[in-house]
Amino acid sequence: MTISPLDPPERLLMGPGPSNVHPRVYQALSAPVVGHLDPVFVKIMEECKDLLRSTFQTKNELTIAISGTGSSGMETCFVNSLEPGDRALICISGVFGMRMREVASRCGAEVDVVETAWGTAITEEAVAEALSKKAYKVVAIVHAETSTGVLQPLEEISKLVHEHGALFLVDAVTSLGGVELDIDALGVDLCYSGTQKCLGCPPGLSPVTFSPRAMENLVARSKPVQSWYLDLSLISQYWGESRVYHHTAPISMNYALREALLLVAEEGLQARWDRHVRNQQALVRGLQALDLSLVVDAEIRLPPLTTVRIPEGIEDATVRGILLQRFGIEIGGGLGAFQENAWRIGLMGTTSTERNVTTFLAALQATLAGLGHRCGGAVEAALDN
Amino acid sequence: MTISPLDPPERLLMGPGPSNVHPRVYQALSAPVVGHLDPVFVKIMEECKDLLRSTFQTKNELTIAISGTGSSGMETCFVNSLEPGDRALICISGVFGMRMREVASRCGAEVDVVETAWGTAITEEAVAEALSKKAYKVVAIVHAETSTGVLQPLEEISKLVHEHGALFLVDAVTSLGGVELDIDALGVDLCYSGTQKCLGCPPGLSPVTFSPRAMENLVARSKPVQSWYLDLSLISQYWGESRVYHHTAPISMNYALREALLLVAEEGLQARWDRHVRNQQALVRGLQALDLSLVVDAEIRLPPLTTVRIPEGIEDATVRGILLQRFGIEIGGGLGAFQENAWRIGLMGTTSTERNVTTFLAALQATLAGLGHRCGGAVEAALDN
Repeated sequence: MTISPLDPPERLLMGPGPSNVHPRVYQALSAPVVGHLDPVFVKIMEECKDLLRSTFQTKNELTIAISGTGSSGMETCFVNSLEPGDRALICISGVFGMRMREVASRCGAEVDVVETAWGTAITEEAVAEALSKKAYKVVAIVHAETSTGVLQPLEEISKLVHEHGALFLVDAVTSLGGVELDIDALGVDLCYSGTQKCLGCPPGLSPVTFSPRAMENLVARSKPVQSWYLDLSLISQYWGESRVYHHTAPISMNYALREALLLVAEEGLQARWDRHVRNQQALVRGLQALDLSLVVDAEIRLPPLTTVRIPEGIEDATVRGILLQRFGIEIGGGLGAFQENAWRIGLMGTTSTERNVTTFLAALQATLAGLGHRCGGAVEAALDN
Repeated sequence: MTISPLDPPERLLMGPGPSNVHPRVYQALSAPVVGHLDPVFVKIMEECKDLLRSTFQTKNELTIAISGTGSSGMETCFVNSLEPGDRALICISGVFGMRMREVASRCGAEVDVVETAWGTAITEEAVAEALSKKAYKVVAIVHAETSTGVLQPLEEISKLVHEHGALFLVDAVTSLGGVELDIDALGVDLCYSGTQKCLGCPPGLSPVTFSPRAMENLVARSKPVQSWYLDLSLISQYWGESRVYHHTAPISMNYALREALLLVAEEGLQARWDRHVRNQQALVRGLQALDLSLVVDAEIRLPPLTTVRIPEGIEDATVRGILLQRFGIEIGGGLGAFQENAWRIGLMGTTSTERNVTTFLAALQATLAGLGHRCGGAVEAALDN
C-alpha cells in the first residue's frame, strides 16, 4: 500500500452539501485540542450554546451540538421523544421524510404518514385530516427537503399540531443559517440541523434544540432512551452545570462550529437569508437563459438548493463528471424520484456568492454547449438585476 | 454576548484522553473539504480502511471509522450484534465495562456480568464459570480499562468464548495504536476504538472492525438494527463498492484520522508499543521517587495510562488545578471507585515522549513539595535507565 501526502483539490462545492468552508473555520479546526472538561473548553461549550440559540432563534435551554452528523440529530430527536407503542405522524415529501419514517419505526413507534408528490409541499389540509383521525405524540416534517429543493411552510401546520397536543419535530438540516427559521415563534418542539450546509462548517456535528415541552416529555418517559450515545437526559448533564462526563466531545469540530456560528452572527441572520435569496435568483435567471426548467414552483423554492430538470438527450453523469473534473465544481445528482432526471445545485453558507453563481453558470453553459445543448447568455442573465 | 477570537492554550494532555495531536494531523484537519461521494474522498476512504486494517492487524472487510466518538463505536458493536432477548455476558472491571452493560441492556438483551475489583483484571476462571451456566450470543470485555489503568489479558478468554460459540466483543479505545492488539490472531469478532487516545487524533471518530462471523450474525438478524445511524448493514454499503449514500461522512475528521494512521504505519506497530512501554517505565520510576504508589500491579499495568494513588493529606483538585493553570498540564482525576483517591496519567500516542515525562515529573514534584509532600529526584529517576 503506497499512500501519498494528503492533497485534496479546492472544489467549488455546489451540491446538496457539504458546502465550502470559510478560512476562519479551517483555522479554528486546527487550533490546539484541550481536554473535554478543561475550563477553556467549558467556556467554548457555553459560547456554542449561546450562538446556537441565536441562530435557531430560541430560548431553549437544551440547545447543543450532537457528536455526529445531521442524521444523528434526526435520530436524537426521535429516540428521545418516542417510546415503543407511541404514535408518530411523519410528513413525507422526499428522501429525508422517508428517513424520518424509518428512524421513528425503529423506535418501536406506530407510524402513520402524510405524503405528497416530490417537488411539492405538504398542505395543512392533509395534516389536519390525519390529525382528525388519531392522536399522535409527535408530528414530524422536513423544513428544507434536500432531495427536492422544496421549502416547506411551517406556520399553519405548527398551529394544528399544537391544537392536537402533539410535539412538533422539524428537520432544519438545509435551512438553519440559510432560510428564515424562528424556533420559538413557530412553536417547534424538537429541531435538528447539520453543520455542513448553510452554516458553512465541515460535516460532523448536528445542532439540536429541545423545547421545555420536549424536555418534560423526556423526563416523563417510562423506559430509558434506546440509544445511550444519543440519550439527552445524560448528554444534557455534560452540557449543563454539573458537567458530568458522558462521552469525549469532538473538541476540534466544536471549535469549528463556534467559528462558523460567529460568522453567522457577524453577518446577521436577515442579511444572510437575503444573500441566499439574492444569489439563488441570479442562478435561476442564468438557468432560465440556458433554457433549463426548474422542478419547484417559485413560492416554495428553497433558496440554498435549486433543483433543475436535466434536458432531453443530456446525460446526468457526463455533465457532472465534466463539471467536477475540468472545472472543479461539484453539483448533486437527483435522489429517488429525481435520479438521473434532475440536478441539485446548492448555494449554501459560504458558497452563496455572486461570483460562485457566475463561475458555475459559465462552466455549465460551456459543458452543455459541448454536448449539443446550445444556449448562451447565462452569466449575463445572472448579472442583469 | 461578547465572544473573543478562538485561542485555546497549548496544553500538555496527559489525562485519559484526548492526547496531543501531531502537527501533520492538524494540517490534515484543515485541508480543503470535498464532497462525500467525490472520487478523491472515495480514495481516502479506501486508504483509511487499509490503514485501519493494518493498525487493528486484521483482514476484516468491514473495518471503518464510525461517524461519532468512541462511545458511538461501543453502541455500534452492541446494536449490530444483539437483538431483544439475546443473551450477553459483560465483563466489568471499571466504568467502561459498566457502560457496556448499560448499552447492551438498552438493546433489549438479557445481560449477565462477571465482575472483578477495580484495578484488577478479569480471570479466565470467572469467565469459564459464567459460560458453563448459560449460552451467550456475545461476550464483551474491555482490553484497556481507562478508568483503572488495567490491561486485560485476552488470549485465554477469547478461546473460552469461541469454544462456547459466542461472539467476542472487545473495547480497544485506549489500546489501539498504543498496546499490542492482533484482532485476527486473538479471534476478536467485534472491536471498537477511539481516535483521541493512542492514535493521537482529535476526538470525533470511532474505528470499528467486524469479523466475517459478526457480519454473518448481522445479516441473519430477524429485526432491523434499532439505530438507523449506526446500522452497519447500511453504512457498509457506503463504505463498500456500491457507495450508496447513507449519511454525509465527517470529511475533515477522516482526513485527520488518515494522517494519524499514516504516522502509526511510518513508526511501525512494534516500535510504537515499545515507546509506550519505555515512557511509562520512566514515568513509574519518577513516581516511585516521589514516594507515590501505583494502583495496578506491574504485569497488568496499561502502558498508555498509569493510575497512581493520591498521597494522604493531598487534595486531588488542588494538584490538578496547579498542574493545569500554572504548568499547562492536564492529568485525569479518578472515576467511580477511584474518585478523589487516584490520578490517571496518560502517555498516549504523540504525548508519549521522554521529554513529556520529565516535564510532568518536574511540575508534579514542585506542586507536591509546595503542598508539603517533600520528595525529590523524580526527573533523575526517570532518566536513569
